[in-house]
Amino acid sequence: MKLSQLGERKIIKIFEREFDKRRCKNAVVGIGDDACVIKFGNKYLAVSTDAIYQKTHIPREMTPRQIGKFAVNVNLSDIAAMGAAPLGMVFSFGMPSNLDENFVAELSKGINKACREHKTCVFGGDTKEHGEIVIAGTAFGNVENKILTRSAAKAGDLICVTGSIGSAAAGFYCLTKNLDVKASGRLIKAALEPKARVREGILLGRYANACIDISDGLAFSLHEIAKASRVGFLVYEEKIPVDKNVKKVAELSGIPLREIAFHKGGDYELLFTISSRKFKRMKEEIGSDVAVIGEIKKRGKKILNISGETEELESRGYEAFVTKFLNLKSADIEAWKKRQCCGSLSRIRR
Amino acid sequence: MKLSQLGERKIIKIFEREFDKRRCKNAVVGIGDDACVIKFGNKYLAVSTDAIYQKTHIPREMTPRQIGKFAVNVNLSDIAAMGAAPLGMVFSFGMPSNLDENFVAELSKGINKACREHKTCVFGGDTKEHGEIVIAGTAFGNVENKILTRSAAKAGDLICVTGSIGSAAAGFYCLTKNLDVKASGRLIKAALEPKARVREGILLGRYANACIDISDGLAFSLHEIAKASRVGFLVYEEKIPVDKNVKKVAELSGIPLREIAFHKGGDYELLFTISSRKFKRMKEEIGSDVAVIGEIKKRGKKILNISGETEELESRGYEAFVTKFLNLKSADIEAWKKRQCCGSLSRIRR
Repeated sequence: MKLSQLGERKIIKIFEREFDKRRCKNAVVGIGDDACVIKFGNKYLAVSTDAIYQKTHIPREMTPRQIGKFAVNVNLSDIAAMGAAPLGMVFSFGMPSNLDENFVAELSKGINKACREHKTCVFGGDTKEHGEIVIAGTAFGNVENKILTRSAAKAGDLICVTGSIGSAAAGFYCLTKNLDVKASGRLIKAALEPKARVREGILLGRYANACIDISDGLAFSLHEIAKASRVGFLVYEEKIPVDKNVKKVAELSGIPLREIAFHKGGDYELLFTISSRKFKRMKEEIGSDVAVIGEIKKRGKKILNISGETEELESRGYEAFVTKFLNLKSADIEAWKKRQCCGSLSRIRR
Repeated sequence: MKLSQLGERKIIKIFEREFDKRRCKNAVVGIGDDACVIKFGNKYLAVSTDAIYQKTHIPREMTPRQIGKFAVNVNLSDIAAMGAAPLGMVFSFGMPSNLDENFVAELSKGINKACREHKTCVFGGDTKEHGEIVIAGTAFGNVENKILTRSAAKAGDLICVTGSIGSAAAGFYCLTKNLDVKASGRLIKAALEPKARVREGILLGRYANACIDISDGLAFSLHEIAKASRVGFLVYEEKIPVDKNVKKVAELSGIPLREIAFHKGGDYELLFTISSRKFKRMKEEIGSDVAVIGEIKKRGKKILNISGETEELESRGYEAFVTKFLNLKSADIEAWKKRQCCGSLSRIRR
């Protein structure tokens, strides 16, 4: 069967079947979570690897600096979802030989800036020639408190998310559908410059039970926690934190808001579950927007919709090989070069 | 300037300039060695990342199983060169959507087999769709003894290599030039199934001073040690361990033996320097072929050639972007499929 028929999750099942886990004596958390966790000496090391490819992950509106920041943030988001503090990263770069050295310099500046924002660094890496730009990152984190897996949610836990949902997908629609939305700059920034919830992840290590990064979509992530923790959930649609401009994008584009908020993905926010008695203390300390969107139940994967009816929530989300994220146009090196590698967000808005 | 004019080493210089190393507080060894070494808790973690790309690194003669083994060994070779024992690996896979699931299964079996041979495992990874096969691996190692950098060679040290040199390049010539050499199967195996010197690297951590993996070529690696350690070297050409069939390949192909042994690369062997008083003990313990090929000098980068004359040794070796390794034909998925993903070495010899 071709991989396009199989889909990412089933491909991962092949790896799980073939790799002999018994030799991974130091692995505390292995395949199937946001990151692996390895016991090393007297400490726990979280490790996550994620690659971005020019044609499938880098919208042509992204500047080289934004690409650099993006590569850092997608990896650190997985480290944050484990409740770990970033230690550093390594990168394996693939680059076309006709690329200009300015591109490399701008990309590096973006990587360095994002590392600085998250108080981390690049330890080293590898550079090779390749037909298109590939940035394969591996991030390391130090788990100082609890390891936040997907499998530790308990019936009765509150379900929470950081930040606001659907902004990245809405931002992409602003770019690809030329929508006239007032705050499109902010939405486009959410799409092109996502920021991992690193600080929040570290703090959640002291309070949360289960945690996951929702970049593959909110619905998919809820189902992942339910499956791994062998529990159910009830989510209140009206409690989902959605920017009013995202609602405007839904109206103008004709794409249902439920679709944008639950199934499109692209938001590098954290979904977590927490005992209700710890919620208040966490909320006081976190200093960021956190919304309670539902409750972990013994069974059922339900949503209480805006009309007050309970229905099943589909687990559908972003899946590599089977779906394409918003049919983005492929990145265009020529366009970057014309913009001299570093157009600001306002200059590239169309 | 385009990257093809710049070359890999100068591209790395851009990264070195832009990345703020002061934030890498835990890094004991950073950019510029075979792997980074990070102090984590009470231990030292070696980390290396290396990607292989279908069109530039995977000869079409490689079976999917061999590709899997190759991906493991190229990464573990860098860990071995630091004197570290492998802990485990993570992989970021890029795969074309029209690839068959058998390919993934065979690739996984190859990865698993190579991990077993080196007593290590895969902790986890990431799979994405990409136009061609990309396997970006990151390997972790535990440095139990000395950290073997490139910079610790001392004047008076013996210069040694493991195994035999030039076999991989000769094997590629057997494949691409259809040479009639008796032991071509062994040479082709050296090219398509290199085996990292993991066990030797761990042992050398107790004896050697400096160490480097010679996959970019023996001459280049000698110069790297000299540059990093601020020393010189004298190498005796007649002491280089070269298989007699490699000499035959040189004769038949018309490519000078010096070129094959010193400049072509592709051998995943270790080059190391060691104090002469420790040599005997190391040799007794290592249980593999080790040859003394020269001596570290205060200055000069010289070779004593077969005619007994001393000359400068060029540092030329494999460099991404600038040179191509042997102009190998690009990998051909259709050919793999016809071979049902798992042709044996004898079946694919042409």
